[in-house]
Amino acid sequence: METETMDASFYMRLALQMAEAARGQTGVNPVVGCVVVKQGRIVGIGTHLKRGTEHAEVHAIRMAGGEAEGSTVYVTLEPCSYYGRTPPCADLLIQSKVAKVVVACLDPNPQVAGKGIEKLRSRGIEVETGVLQEEAAALNEPFNKYIVSGLPFVTLKTACTLDGKIASRTGDSKWITNEKSRAFVHVLRHRHQAIMVGSGTVLADDPSLTTRLEVEALQPIRIVVDSMLRSPENAKIFDGQSRTIVLTTDEAPRDKAERLTGKGVEVVATGQGPHVDLRMAMKLLGEREIGSILLEGGGRLNGAMLENRLVDVCRLFFAPKIIGGREAPGSFAFEGFERMSDALKLERIRVESFGDDVCITGYPVYGPY
Amino acid sequence: METETMDASFYMRLALQMAEAARGQTGVNPVVGCVVVKQGRIVGIGTHLKRGTEHAEVHAIRMAGGEAEGSTVYVTLEPCSYYGRTPPCADLLIQSKVAKVVVACLDPNPQVAGKGIEKLRSRGIEVETGVLQEEAAALNEPFNKYIVSGLPFVTLKTACTLDGKIASRTGDSKWITNEKSRAFVHVLRHRHQAIMVGSGTVLADDPSLTTRLEVEALQPIRIVVDSMLRSPENAKIFDGQSRTIVLTTDEAPRDKAERLTGKGVEVVATGQGPHVDLRMAMKLLGEREIGSILLEGGGRLNGAMLENRLVDVCRLFFAPKIIGGREAPGSFAFEGFERMSDALKLERIRVESFGDDVCITGYPVYGPY
Repeated sequence: METETMDASFYMRLALQMAEAARGQTGVNPVVGCVVVKQGRIVGIGTHLKRGTEHAEVHAIRMAGGEAEGSTVYVTLEPCSYYGRTPPCADLLIQSKVAKVVVACLDPNPQVAGKGIEKLRSRGIEVETGVLQEEAAALNEPFNKYIVSGLPFVTLKTACTLDGKIASRTGDSKWITNEKSRAFVHVLRHRHQAIMVGSGTVLADDPSLTTRLEVEALQPIRIVVDSMLRSPENAKIFDGQSRTIVLTTDEAPRDKAERLTGKGVEVVATGQGPHVDLRMAMKLLGEREIGSILLEGGGRLNGAMLENRLVDVCRLFFAPKIIGGREAPGSFAFEGFERMSDALKLERIRVESFGDDVCITGYPVYGPY
Repeated sequence: METETMDASFYMRLALQMAEAARGQTGVNPVVGCVVVKQGRIVGIGTHLKRGTEHAEVHAIRMAGGEAEGSTVYVTLEPCSYYGRTPPCADLLIQSKVAKVVVACLDPNPQVAGKGIEKLRSRGIEVETGVLQEEAAALNEPFNKYIVSGLPFVTLKTACTLDGKIASRTGDSKWITNEKSRAFVHVLRHRHQAIMVGSGTVLADDPSLTTRLEVEALQPIRIVVDSMLRSPENAKIFDGQSRTIVLTTDEAPRDKAERLTGKGVEVVATGQGPHVDLRMAMKLLGEREIGSILLEGGGRLNGAMLENRLVDVCRLFFAPKIIGGREAPGSFAFEGFERMSDALKLERIRVESFGDDVCITGYPVYGPY
């Protein structure tokens, strides 16, 4: 579509697009885009590319060079005001003598939110906030959760038939969704730091849990929830091709844990058992700087993660087919609610089509305990 | 939206809109709209209102009066060329000396298709066909099936959670979908000649199966599939407020059949049992001039109707919630397919939003037997 007008959102949109493109490659860091504009021309652009490297503002100001002085800087996230792995961006903007800074959203960390803006203002730089704020916040959902809670942001993805089944009654599940949907799931894998499945899925499907795209892709950490270490040692996820973590319990056989460790797998005990303590597991993964997880089932793990209120967003793919079978497994296997009015609601519903498949996205609303 | 141009589709659109508004009130007859145009002005409009009464063309030509001569007539369905309950419309158009007739789609009845157009052309009237043909054909799906096969067109409607459940594990189902979806279901009831449910639904929910709209609505015939006549005699569907048919078998208790008959219910035997012969049942309903049925479950009847290839279109409402419960009933309870590749596919998928509910519509593709 042709741009209809040019205002602050025109440049912020570009900054967001650059940030969006970098999703998946910044680890627990947010994705951030920055555009420097002077006298009607873009003079610098930048995006944060990798944790521990330059922030978006640094790249963009460097590109602007001498033009930075007197410029307007559009940045999707409040410039930092503190020394982290890199020096504070607010200081850089001050030193560069920019005239104005336009910010999409504040730092989600309540301990520093607003401080970058305050610093800029205290040095006479005009600051405007809230331009495309919602879009910018949505882009960094994982970061926003992780920075505040220390827990990974969990995206639950399922693919089922219109009757809610993830396999036939005989267990056959290839394929439910179409190529477009399946290709998009690999984009989701690229965007998350880790993929998580239950041991039932490993036993049933022996997935490799790698990202396969037409272009080179990031390979997320593979996580298996396996209370008793039932996953076979020759499973594809133990092929050593990317980092693999097994969440288990003290009840699991020690010799098997040792053999897996010998293969380079990280075996993490999460309580006495008999089931993995999922809340503890998420905490331990957060401590290992895993800030986002794509949860790919099966039904029991999906259900247990929901029950433990650990799912942040659901992305449910529906394929236009009906498989039947009362005993065919569903997307969510858990005890469930007695009353329809107590069902877990999803909000901020978004509906997308992938060919004839439909993807319904929604955010669980967990009531008070 | 402002009309961007005026061509034949401009008037045909109006004819279709009038036809669409009359859906539900023409019984086994098609809905048809007609617009008569002369020298740049609409001079007559008409729509078929009720079976046995004037066709759309008759109303429109009557309104046009002397202006009909030399006019162009837009009609959504080929004018009839034979004496049915009313005289042939082709003759009327010839007598009225119209100059041109524009037709959206041919009569779906292969025995008469094209004959109306032929007659008009043989009398020197210019005929154009195919204007908004697809839209016009879609509008009369039920008629198109019934006229050719003698079987009612069946719309399967379900309302389920995102995990495919139509009730909680305790059977609670009030409410799954939101008010917008539920209001639309009453529009669907208004548009169909009959509503059909299984006896399980009568026992579980005791529905009244009436149409409740803000305006006065048509009350479809109520049909219960009840092989053993398990439905209680004091069920709401037996309240006599509208015509009710019970499909049963020879195995059902005769005394109960007689008591129901005594209450004005039509009890129709469909084979020896133990289950209602659904194919026979559809044939018998067709013979009773029921040309369209809204199938509202439950899961077992939905499954059996699908297995018997008697469902023509599925309209599946998904509410943005997850209820859980392995034993909670699903939209389709039947044995199902062994292989995912054998699942029943739906085609011509349409996705609509009703607030946060999503309605997926699709047409089952039944392979060769």
